[in-house]
Amino acid sequence: MSTLLISGGTVVSATGRTRADVLVDGERIVALVEPGSTALGADLASSVDRVVDATDKYVIPGGIDAHTHMELPFGGTQASDTFETGTTAAAWGGTTSIIDFAVQKYGEAVETGLAAWHEKAGGNCAVDYGFHQIIGGVDEQSLKAMETLVDEGITSYKLFMAYPGVFYSDDAQILKAMQKAAELGLMTMMHAENGPAIDVLAEQLYNQGKTGPYFHGIARAWQMEEEATHRAIMLADLTNAPLYVVHVSAKQAVAQLAAARDRGKNVFGETCPQYLYLSLEEQLGAGGEDGFEGAKWVCSTPLRSRAEGHQDAMWAGLRTNDLQMVSTDHCPFCMKDQKELGRGDFRAIPNGIGSIEHRMDLLYQGVVTGELTLERWVELTSTTPARMFGLHGTKGVIAPGADADIVVYDPNGHTSIGYEQTHHMNMDHSAWEGFEIDGHVDVVISRGSVVVSDGAFHGRAGHGKFLKRGLTQYLS
Amino acid sequence: MSTLLISGGTVVSATGRTRADVLVDGERIVALVEPGSTALGADLASSVDRVVDATDKYVIPGGIDAHTHMELPFGGTQASDTFETGTTAAAWGGTTSIIDFAVQKYGEAVETGLAAWHEKAGGNCAVDYGFHQIIGGVDEQSLKAMETLVDEGITSYKLFMAYPGVFYSDDAQILKAMQKAAELGLMTMMHAENGPAIDVLAEQLYNQGKTGPYFHGIARAWQMEEEATHRAIMLADLTNAPLYVVHVSAKQAVAQLAAARDRGKNVFGETCPQYLYLSLEEQLGAGGEDGFEGAKWVCSTPLRSRAEGHQDAMWAGLRTNDLQMVSTDHCPFCMKDQKELGRGDFRAIPNGIGSIEHRMDLLYQGVVTGELTLERWVELTSTTPARMFGLHGTKGVIAPGADADIVVYDPNGHTSIGYEQTHHMNMDHSAWEGFEIDGHVDVVISRGSVVVSDGAFHGRAGHGKFLKRGLTQYLS
Amino acid sequence: MSTLLISGGTVVSATGRTRADVLVDGERIVALVEPGSTALGADLASSVDRVVDATDKYVIPGGIDAHTHMELPFGGTQASDTFETGTTAAAWGGTTSIIDFAVQKYGEAVETGLAAWHEKAGGNCAVDYGFHQIIGGVDEQSLKAMETLVDEGITSYKLFMAYPGVFYSDDAQILKAMQKAAELGLMTMMHAENGPAIDVLAEQLYNQGKTGPYFHGIARAWQMEEEATHRAIMLADLTNAPLYVVHVSAKQAVAQLAAARDRGKNVFGETCPQYLYLSLEEQLGAGGEDGFEGAKWVCSTPLRSRAEGHQDAMWAGLRTNDLQMVSTDHCPFCMKDQKELGRGDFRAIPNGIGSIEHRMDLLYQGVVTGELTLERWVELTSTTPARMFGLHGTKGVIAPGADADIVVYDPNGHTSIGYEQTHHMNMDHSAWEGFEIDGHVDVVISRGSVVVSDGAFHGRAGHGKFLKRGLTQYLS
Amino acid sequence: MSTLLISGGTVVSATGRTRADVLVDGERIVALVEPGSTALGADLASSVDRVVDATDKYVIPGGIDAHTHMELPFGGTQASDTFETGTTAAAWGGTTSIIDFAVQKYGEAVETGLAAWHEKAGGNCAVDYGFHQIIGGVDEQSLKAMETLVDEGITSYKLFMAYPGVFYSDDAQILKAMQKAAELGLMTMMHAENGPAIDVLAEQLYNQGKTGPYFHGIARAWQMEEEATHRAIMLADLTNAPLYVVHVSAKQAVAQLAAARDRGKNVFGETCPQYLYLSLEEQLGAGGEDGFEGAKWVCSTPLRSRAEGHQDAMWAGLRTNDLQMVSTDHCPFCMKDQKELGRGDFRAIPNGIGSIEHRMDLLYQGVVTGELTLERWVELTSTTPARMFGLHGTKGVIAPGADADIVVYDPNGHTSIGYEQTHHMNMDHSAWEGFEIDGHVDVVISRGSVVVSDGAFHGRAGHGKFLKRGLTQYLS
Repeated sequence: MSTLLISGGTVVSATGRTRADVLVDGERIVALVEPGSTALGADLASSVDRVVDATDKYVIPGGIDAHTHMELPFGGTQASDTFETGTTAAAWGGTTSIIDFAVQKYGEAVETGLAAWHEKAGGNCAVDYGFHQIIGGVDEQSLKAMETLVDEGITSYKLFMAYPGVFYSDDAQILKAMQKAAELGLMTMMHAENGPAIDVLAEQLYNQGKTGPYFHGIARAWQMEEEATHRAIMLADLTNAPLYVVHVSAKQAVAQLAAARDRGKNVFGETCPQYLYLSLEEQLGAGGEDGFEGAKWVCSTPLRSRAEGHQDAMWAGLRTNDLQMVSTDHCPFCMKDQKELGRGDFRAIPNGIGSIEHRMDLLYQGVVTGELTLERWVELTSTTPARMFGLHGTKGVIAPGADADIVVYDPNGHTSIGYEQTHHMNMDHSAWEGFEIDGHVDVVISRGSVVVSDGAFHGRAGHGKFLKRGLTQYLS
Repeated sequence: MSTLLISGGTVVSATGRTRADVLVDGERIVALVEPGSTALGADLASSVDRVVDATDKYVIPGGIDAHTHMELPFGGTQASDTFETGTTAAAWGGTTSIIDFAVQKYGEAVETGLAAWHEKAGGNCAVDYGFHQIIGGVDEQSLKAMETLVDEGITSYKLFMAYPGVFYSDDAQILKAMQKAAELGLMTMMHAENGPAIDVLAEQLYNQGKTGPYFHGIARAWQMEEEATHRAIMLADLTNAPLYVVHVSAKQAVAQLAAARDRGKNVFGETCPQYLYLSLEEQLGAGGEDGFEGAKWVCSTPLRSRAEGHQDAMWAGLRTNDLQMVSTDHCPFCMKDQKELGRGDFRAIPNGIGSIEHRMDLLYQGVVTGELTLERWVELTSTTPARMFGLHGTKGVIAPGADADIVVYDPNGHTSIGYEQTHHMNMDHSAWEGFEIDGHVDVVISRGSVVVSDGAFHGRAGHGKFLKRGLTQYLS
Repeated sequence: MSTLLISGGTVVSATGRTRADVLVDGERIVALVEPGSTALGADLASSVDRVVDATDKYVIPGGIDAHTHMELPFGGTQASDTFETGTTAAAWGGTTSIIDFAVQKYGEAVETGLAAWHEKAGGNCAVDYGFHQIIGGVDEQSLKAMETLVDEGITSYKLFMAYPGVFYSDDAQILKAMQKAAELGLMTMMHAENGPAIDVLAEQLYNQGKTGPYFHGIARAWQMEEEATHRAIMLADLTNAPLYVVHVSAKQAVAQLAAARDRGKNVFGETCPQYLYLSLEEQLGAGGEDGFEGAKWVCSTPLRSRAEGHQDAMWAGLRTNDLQMVSTDHCPFCMKDQKELGRGDFRAIPNGIGSIEHRMDLLYQGVVTGELTLERWVELTSTTPARMFGLHGTKGVIAPGADADIVVYDPNGHTSIGYEQTHHMNMDHSAWEGFEIDGHVDVVISRGSVVVSDGAFHGRAGHGKFLKRGLTQYLS
Repeated sequence: MSTLLISGGTVVSATGRTRADVLVDGERIVALVEPGSTALGADLASSVDRVVDATDKYVIPGGIDAHTHMELPFGGTQASDTFETGTTAAAWGGTTSIIDFAVQKYGEAVETGLAAWHEKAGGNCAVDYGFHQIIGGVDEQSLKAMETLVDEGITSYKLFMAYPGVFYSDDAQILKAMQKAAELGLMTMMHAENGPAIDVLAEQLYNQGKTGPYFHGIARAWQMEEEATHRAIMLADLTNAPLYVVHVSAKQAVAQLAAARDRGKNVFGETCPQYLYLSLEEQLGAGGEDGFEGAKWVCSTPLRSRAEGHQDAMWAGLRTNDLQMVSTDHCPFCMKDQKELGRGDFRAIPNGIGSIEHRMDLLYQGVVTGELTLERWVELTSTTPARMFGLHGTKGVIAPGADADIVVYDPNGHTSIGYEQTHHMNMDHSAWEGFEIDGHVDVVISRGSVVVSDGAFHGRAGHGKFLKRGLTQYLS
């Protein structure tokens, strides 16, 4: 095995900063060493196969994006990133692990859905990948199937309170699944929006001729996110199941999570870059009520009003740990042939934004502007995702024994986000056009291999391995 | 310099566990190395001066007790532990740093008070020590004096809303001090009890012949802790000063902290082992209303009612991070000649409990009973204290460059707490008599020196150095 | 028309007490007069046809029970009180108006259900009666039918979040009905329990052999009442529909109502005597887990745990107006042949308690024990029910022009509640056996007719008229 | 005694409306009669001495302004309305009772202060008047003096958490006074602002050259109102004393009251017209930071920011009964020679606004705009003030036996408020210039005497009598 030394940098963990050289042997980190120490009796730099100079840069654990949807079938089309293109873009952006969602469709066996996802991802990923399991139809059979997930290394599953007729679970189904999850130690992930009510509102808007993308956000009112979040919390309370609410965007939903945590409940929440930076007002601005440009920002939960303070509440929630993580909900669709399916009917616009490449940068900008500490950046993007989903030790930390998933981040660099400039996701536009970042992903190492350096991609599809995850480490 | 290897243990940090050998060179950690790795080209165990075997044990950063009162003058006597006896007991218990409170008395210059504390501690400590500064009289002079504290390495100061005529600051004084602190970056620590109101209640009880130690807790009603906590939060809100509330014991005070944090405020709280384990009911049980045995548990804030759920709320607050730290408020008094000053008048009982020796063990028992994770134990007792008070990097973490303050903790050991058995504090009784711990502090290393091992103390007074602290690292 | 004078009593209103004689002419009150005043130029007592002496007694507006279920089909049987027996018992107890629930069953036209209720009640009532409309199946047809309800004098309707397959509405249905109600000015009444989840829990308990009546309350966990209450509030928020939650029994549900009101929402709640006085512990006490005696107290929402403080919270909510009314949810079933249907399966026990005869007395006892003021008693049992449901002016007040529905209540009297003693409801037991009341309903006047006096009933079936109600007067 | 009939109007109470004639005999109401009823055997209109035609108008109980400061010494001057001019203006505006504050200055006996107020008011009032007692110095003597207040008909007293060195009480004093009040049944009224902190802020602003009236509001930050409100609530909680917070203006203070009420506490709040209609932004608009015109709106608590939503919160609080009353805090000062004392130093501007003449109109406008119901208008301005402060039965209601304090209010009339037009207060300006009211006070009757009618004042100084009040009727 070859050895590699990342030398001279500042290693940033979730709790602090250390000047240390990081020694990699093969795929793993084997030592952290004080620069210049003679106690080891060896000049490491001269004895290793390769040295990466990290002087004046941050050395951080590779990003873990715990919420992606490669090749997801949705609304008659499918997410435009394959596991290959998506994980390549991830690598470019300093994310070295993803956890994607295997889908059990209603009427299909859980095992079948999972096998299909292994099929799609296997041999095609540029970085490591794991799966959560979507349970799209809670019944005797799927409840039974949940019992084997832990052995498969899949220790979390997701239910939907939205999308009736597609992924939707009713409260009886949710209750049964949570009981089973509590028994098995599985983490319950929840899409918390009241789908049946939202669908009524959406249809009414459509019938009123309000068909543009802006009305997607109007139909998906914050009241229905708050409602579903509270409902999920109470069902979790009843079953003693830990709960992880995905893509939180409404300040009232954060307040519900905070209130539950204040009562001592094991309730967690993730938000996404779009809920920190983008808003309903900007979506309206992009073409007005009738224009279609805002379609690029159609996602669920939707963008929220800046005037109402939702974005500020997301940053505050990240600071006070009422929200524990930032994932992307990466679910890209091109405008052409995909988003355009919804011209004249916002309900037919595929839901999703592509962000996997920019998450680390976008969050770092929050460090620059004083929203987050450097440590919290690492915690939100890597350490907590690893702990929450049973990867810690292997991922999420720079420590002996861990996989050598390492990013060298340059606080003196700069990144201009734009379709022409920095885009590697398989999309025909960028939802983040024009964002400027006062930092730069310089070097990306995945399991010991330098996959990005000097502005070039050196990785390959198939390098990424499937991650058999353990039970959550956040609770025990 | 001599080298030392702690080998074969599980290094526990605030976020995870790693199997790693820890290499110490002189006073500092220089490397963490995967056991058995050959990449370093050296068999570490054979090349170092000394090996500590940590097989099947936890290797954790030495405890930091951020709230102690050695030799504190109080009520006509003074706390019975000197810096020597107190820090020696700390070492026995796995605590390798303390932050004591230098006292400015009303009418005295801040500099004078601080110099007195340097005098008391200098050359006498068995482990490292720092100071917070008590400001007992906020006026032009002391506000001016606050400006030099950062240069002295004292980056936090404490005010009292209790003890009128002794340490008490009124709201005008608090406001001015917080403004100054916000300007300087000092952390404001607050004893949050409404002293003027409490003193009325205490006098009334005394006049009614209710003179036993139990009535200390009745007089110091939770309403007056909740009130003062809220008041401190609002004054902090107005001045933009971060706030750290010491020795939180009432569940309603935790709720106030939680609510402020939910609004995004930089508000923090510490609780103490006594508020996790002991209760007003037990104090009453120790001798009834008239008996005096409960005097050993007279402290302020007081023990709270278990029936009202305060203890459960403290554990819950620690879990959800509405409380960030556990300190001891170590302030020991002997029964004889000290606590006994208050026979017949609970108001004259010196306030304080001695716990510095047992904090690490008592909290570890919370891991055993499932109240906390192993990581949270480390975070609450070492990592966060270091970050909160500007010591991180040097203390609170096992990483290259950090001081070699290390505890080897044996989860298969056992500790029986009792005056006859394990007591090294300078007291004539134990407030923790009879507590059994399913773990044991095996080896304690302070700045590279083994000060406790094999059940013996190998340290010495004067080994401990003064810690010049930086600004809090918890917020930036 | 004959005239009647109630002389010498203290007229109690929702806001105060007045010593006044009340002059009735025919069916209506025509004057309130200061006793002994000569300004009217007439000695009223000598000029009227009849004088009722109310000296040392309270003269209050007749009770209005806004939640009754006479002859309700439920679980294969029907409520044991007919409109005749139920309204006769009401009169005995000082209640001179009821608002019963006309039922639209799923699949049936609203008009058909309403007509059936007119059929049952018409000509059979001893006191006046109105209807709320249960909408058991929200669809195009029933939404259309809601438009005619106001003209029918039915200005409130009820939905169920419980009882899937019977009365249950899903959230899409609730949203549509609330939108329609907001447009029409109808008050939305809600049975707020998460039925689908409760039914899962109930089935699981049954399958575990936990079949006794006690488990009815365990299955209907407070979490599911809190959850549904919050959900109803958020749907009301979205539609701008005023909301009235029936039979609130969980303290957490009161907290949700209070929080919504604190945000300025038009959200109201009613509780019932059983949630003020009875508890889950007593139900368990009546026969243990396996006994069946507790079946008499099976109602939905269920009795709650006294140790958890639900009953205290109900009284507090009544005091602070977080709860606005007390109704009975009168829905009596005999033990024999009715409650007994559920021996061996609590799910088959007909849900309901008979209280219509005792509401005024039971609440008066709250005045005696200091839980309520005399004025609040009147407000909760008569004035607010009238205002909330569009009867004020005609009912709920002692004022010129109002119907002469008057109760003379003797605070020096006594009432022993028991099956043998004071029972006029058509039941084979009393759910209130053994309750002692320090007061007594002396005289009851319905639209000018003395229907109860001297311990005898003087009324008749058919005296009661249908009340065409106006829109709520509580909001404009 | 002469008789008077108010005929043909709609009598509005706190809970409803009744078409009734009101018969007055001498000073009191003796009957309410259905118009046209023959049951009394008399044509009332022809038998009385005088008839007031109220056709198409509202007949309401005369307004009770429970918070006025006639002739109050403040900041080297005194409030510009004497009891004569102030009560005359009150009558013009439909207010027929005031409760003014007798002042005990620090160092003076309570009895002396009270006697002085009797001296000022006796024989000089145009309408009835009562007193609350300000306790400006809580000590043994004043606590003793509180014991005689109930016999004097003074059943409420007020403390100040603001104005150190003038009226200020510290927490020890407040605690003692509340204990005494709880024992005696006195209502504790509280000026809830943290005076010591505010004075620091005010001095700092002044020293920065920020001397205009706008900075009065900046210094008196909402945080310090929220803080003091919470503190008062907790002291009341501890002593079991009912609490009434005066002139609430911050939404966060309402939230504290609401939260306490949700916990079942006897906590009440009053707001004033200025906090409903005026704002800090408008004060800034009147002359900018340096101009002085805003001095007319300098009052304490201060006007609050409209952008922050305080005004909306006051209306919402009135609707949901988190606030129970609207008083004026009438404390008028002329600009010339009075407000002008504070040119160049906002701290020297006498605090107060004159509103006594406009309260009924200003609140009625809230009925017009849909903020309040007609009934709530009566409740807030008359019925609850009477109940809260022990006057109900005599005042606050139109019922036999009550004083004939009656206002005939014309909903078809109009009132233009302005210094030239409608002003009878002794001021050289109006704080309400330009407000238009869609209603009009037509006739005002005080204890049977028509004091205002046909746009003319027919009353006289000395008509008004001292009101010996009973204990609060709101709680028992």
